[in-house]
Amino acid sequence: MPRLSEFDLIARHFAPLAAPGGHGLLDDAATLAVPSGHDLVLTKDMLAAGVHFFADDPPDSLAVKALGVNLSDLAAKGATPLGFLLGLALPPDIDDGWMAAFARGLGDMAAAHGCPLLGGDTIRAAGGLTLSVTASGHVPSGRMVRRIAARPGDLLLVSGTVGDAALGLRLRTEPASAFSLGLPSAEAGFLRDRYLRPQPRTALAPVLLGLARAAMDVSDGLAGDAFKMAGRLGLDIRLADLPLSAAARAALAIDPALIETVATGGDDYEVLAAVAPADAGSYEAAARAAAVPVTRIGVFGPPGGAHRLLAADGSERRFARLSHVHA
Amino acid sequence: MPRLSEFDLIARHFAPLAAPGGHGLLDDAATLAVPSGHDLVLTKDMLAAGVHFFADDPPDSLAVKALGVNLSDLAAKGATPLGFLLGLALPPDIDDGWMAAFARGLGDMAAAHGCPLLGGDTIRAAGGLTLSVTASGHVPSGRMVRRIAARPGDLLLVSGTVGDAALGLRLRTEPASAFSLGLPSAEAGFLRDRYLRPQPRTALAPVLLGLARAAMDVSDGLAGDAFKMAGRLGLDIRLADLPLSAAARAALAIDPALIETVATGGDDYEVLAAVAPADAGSYEAAARAAAVPVTRIGVFGPPGGAHRLLAADGSERRFARLSHVHA
Repeated sequence: MPRLSEFDLIARHFAPLAAPGGHGLLDDAATLAVPSGHDLVLTKDMLAAGVHFFADDPPDSLAVKALGVNLSDLAAKGATPLGFLLGLALPPDIDDGWMAAFARGLGDMAAAHGCPLLGGDTIRAAGGLTLSVTASGHVPSGRMVRRIAARPGDLLLVSGTVGDAALGLRLRTEPASAFSLGLPSAEAGFLRDRYLRPQPRTALAPVLLGLARAAMDVSDGLAGDAFKMAGRLGLDIRLADLPLSAAARAALAIDPALIETVATGGDDYEVLAAVAPADAGSYEAAARAAAVPVTRIGVFGPPGGAHRLLAADGSERRFARLSHVHA
Repeated sequence: MPRLSEFDLIARHFAPLAAPGGHGLLDDAATLAVPSGHDLVLTKDMLAAGVHFFADDPPDSLAVKALGVNLSDLAAKGATPLGFLLGLALPPDIDDGWMAAFARGLGDMAAAHGCPLLGGDTIRAAGGLTLSVTASGHVPSGRMVRRIAARPGDLLLVSGTVGDAALGLRLRTEPASAFSLGLPSAEAGFLRDRYLRPQPRTALAPVLLGLARAAMDVSDGLAGDAFKMAGRLGLDIRLADLPLSAAARAALAIDPALIETVATGGDDYEVLAAVAPADAGSYEAAARAAAVPVTRIGVFGPPGGAHRLLAADGSERRFARLSHVHA
């Protein structure tokens, strides 16, 4: 199949996804009207083949991941999506069928989260495929939910379930391990899909805006990210309280040592929130109303306090590392 | 020299460049207040080693180019810069000295154009160095200067001088050509620098906003870009009227065939504007007041009209291609 020109590629695959402010993707810039009394929120995450994904991942899943990780940042900051820019560095083996599947995944994700395409750039890759998304959203002026703003005594809550994506990645990289061989295929499929297709918690954004003191999404690893959020404050995380999917529970039943992967593996894209104890009940109720489960997993301590992972008996667990580092 | 962690790299080299809305580059997103009654303007251009620049180009020049090409898009759209996000995919051989020089170039460019760093992402490159910048600016609501909006009879004007960057590139790729060997070193240095360090026409933005019917910057090639701007309209460009630097004139004196490179080479980052004949004098005066020289080089014709490059005697010149295509 002949390689598409940049013009044809945009006209065929991307122009149908464009917001009005994208001007049909025929201009050099996009326009965006930010609601009055609101700040624009901007985030940018890049993904590279061989670092953040496998070159042979399904193209629609790459679109879901590239846009999803950026939407996840917006959600954790309490922002409502406005639109995104897409940068693509394409290796020569990308053909029209690949691009059609990629655009389909991108369009579905954009529609599901109300975040249309505004523009971008497509270049020839010097190495492998690289994706660079800039997503924009809005929050009431001065109200972006910050990463480092928890106070001593605040509770730590996390959305959804954790560890699934990291277990899904280990299924791929260690197909001969006991848990890879022992896990039923439905559970294995669930975990693999959680790695491939992160689902950003856009519905949680307004809840965070009203009730969270601080928040961030889990991209590098639950423990490492939560301790980043604590900054100079202490933080105790109770491992026995981590919310687990049925598939993750099945994996842990085969190999209990996988708790380390659950607690420190990346790519969950769930939202960690620091909530004042008096607001925790309201936060849980509002999250439930938004169809997002949330779970209390820890408590922040005083400045200079320790960052600890605690077992059910209250003893401290130490792992070799606290995050899965991509880059 | 040991490789810096992403955290150290940001703290040492990039945090000093951050705008207040960048939150010290310690959060997952940046905030931006867009003036009321204004639209946000967003643009994104990626650059890859081996495609848009040479891997051994001076690091400060890569910063100037990566930010400059995006600032050039903002300027051509009439937008005042607000800030930018930087995406860096770094190969393993990038060391701290390289990064310090890159950050210096970036900081100087950002300061000169009032466009501070807001945030971004740094990843490990699967291939060579890739730079992805998203720049933002603002225009009065609904007033972004569009690319395809000229009317028949409008004049085509271009800022500065054209062809310098393309000639500078040929000096590098064809060091044994007659013009490379014949050009005095001062002129050669000027041309090389125009390729390495594009200077966006930020000062022209308010002039375009008030007086241009349509505009775009010259990135791929003067002729190709101007004809894109014409769209369905006809356009005659007078080759003899193209504004040339003394260095470009010296090159053409050695090899008159270089007019093709001047008219179709890319990387000028000058601004093409379509201006109504009645406004052309005001446009020239306002540009002069902003210290940006502009020159009348063509005229738009009726819908369906031809796109022509005309020699001094009025005959049509045809070249093998109209643009230098990067990707």
